[in-house]
Amino acid sequence: MDDKFVPNIVVGRLPLYLRTLQLMSQEGRRVTSSQELGERLGISAAQIRKDLSQFGEFGKQGTGYSIDFLTDQLRQILHVNKVWDVAVVGIGDVGHALARYQGFTDRGFRIVLLFDNDPNKVGTNVGGYNIHELSQMVNLIKNAGVLVAMLSVPVDQAQLVANLLIQAGVKSILNYAPINISVPAGVRVQYIDPVLHLQRMTYYLE
Amino acid sequence: MDDKFVPNIVVGRLPLYLRTLQLMSQEGRRVTSSQELGERLGISAAQIRKDLSQFGEFGKQGTGYSIDFLTDQLRQILHVNKVWDVAVVGIGDVGHALARYQGFTDRGFRIVLLFDNDPNKVGTNVGGYNIHELSQMVNLIKNAGVLVAMLSVPVDQAQLVANLLIQAGVKSILNYAPINISVPAGVRVQYIDPVLHLQRMTYYLE
Repeated sequence: MDDKFVPNIVVGRLPLYLRTLQLMSQEGRRVTSSQELGERLGISAAQIRKDLSQFGEFGKQGTGYSIDFLTDQLRQILHVNKVWDVAVVGIGDVGHALARYQGFTDRGFRIVLLFDNDPNKVGTNVGGYNIHELSQMVNLIKNAGVLVAMLSVPVDQAQLVANLLIQAGVKSILNYAPINISVPAGVRVQYIDPVLHLQRMTYYLE
Repeated sequence: MDDKFVPNIVVGRLPLYLRTLQLMSQEGRRVTSSQELGERLGISAAQIRKDLSQFGEFGKQGTGYSIDFLTDQLRQILHVNKVWDVAVVGIGDVGHALARYQGFTDRGFRIVLLFDNDPNKVGTNVGGYNIHELSQMVNLIKNAGVLVAMLSVPVDQAQLVANLLIQAGVKSILNYAPINISVPAGVRVQYIDPVLHLQRMTYYLE
C-alpha cells in the first residue's frame, strides 16, 4: 500500500466493490472480473480497474480477481479488517432501527453504546444494548475509546451533540439529522437523508 | 428553465441547497449569499454560483439571493413544488422508521401505501397507515399512480420486489437493502446503506 493521495470519489466506490464481492462470496463464487463487477454496479470495467490499480495489482490479465483475496485487500484498505465499535445517539425510530440493524455484521462495525436524553428510554434495552443517559455520553465514549458514531437526534440538537461527540474523541460521524454540521479538521461527517435522494430522482420525473 | 443537460453531480447538490434554504427560512432569514451557503455546506461559493447559473439568474450581484425566491425556484427545478405519493415496501425496523419519519413534510413527499408479506403485520397500522399484503402491491400502486417507492426488504428479496414495483409503474426507487439492483432505462435507483458511509470514513482512520 503506498501513501499517495487517492481522490475521495475513488475511496467512495471501494465499499461498493467490497459489498459486491462479499455477496458473490456468499453465493459460493471464487473468481470475478472487472466486467462482471461493473455490470452488477453500473460502473465501467475500466473505471473499476483504474480505481483498484491505485492500491496495487489484484488480478491477473485473463484470469480475473480472486474474490477472497480482493475482499481481504479491500478490507485492509478500508480498515475494516478489524471491527469498529460504534455509538448511536438518539434512540427514536431511526436510532432504534440502527440499534437492531443486522447489516453491520462482517462489514467492520458493531454497536456498543446507545444514548438518549429521554428518561423513559434510559435504562431500557434495544437490540441487546442498554440505553444510557446523554449526560454520561462523553465519559463513556472516551473510556471505551469509541471513534465512530451515528447521530439520529432532532435537527435542533445535532450540532450540539456532534460537538460533544468530538469532545469525547469521535472522529467519524454518520449524521441522520437532516442538517449539515460543522466539524474541525481531522473529523469526518457523512450524511444520510432520504429526501436528498428522493429529490435527486424527482428532478428526472415529469 | 432551459432543457440543456445538467450533470448528475450538479443535480445531486440542488437538494442540499434547498434543504439549507428551507432551514434558513425557518430561522426567519430573508436573504443569503453563495458565500454563506458555501460555508454551511462546505462547498465553494464559486461552485454554488456555477451550479445555480445552469438554471437561470437567481441573485443580483451585491444583494445576494432572496431565500423565498430561490427556494421556490429550486422546488420547481426538482419537481417538489408538488407532493409525491410514496410507497414503502418491507415494514421491518427500517420501513417502520420510514413510515413514521417526520422529515418528509414540506419537502415534496408523503407516504401513502405500506406493504409487507408478514401476515402478522398486514392490516396493522404504522404511523397512521395500514400495512397491505405484498400480493396486492402491483394493483394498489398502479391504481394510485404512485411513481416513487422506498424499498426496505431483505437482500434476497430486493430484486424481485423491485421488478414488481417497476411492473406497477414505479419510476424512482430508494433502496435500503444493501445490494445493487438492476432496473430498465427510465427507472432510477438511489441507495442508502449506512455501512458504505462508515467504510468511507474508516479509510481515513488508523
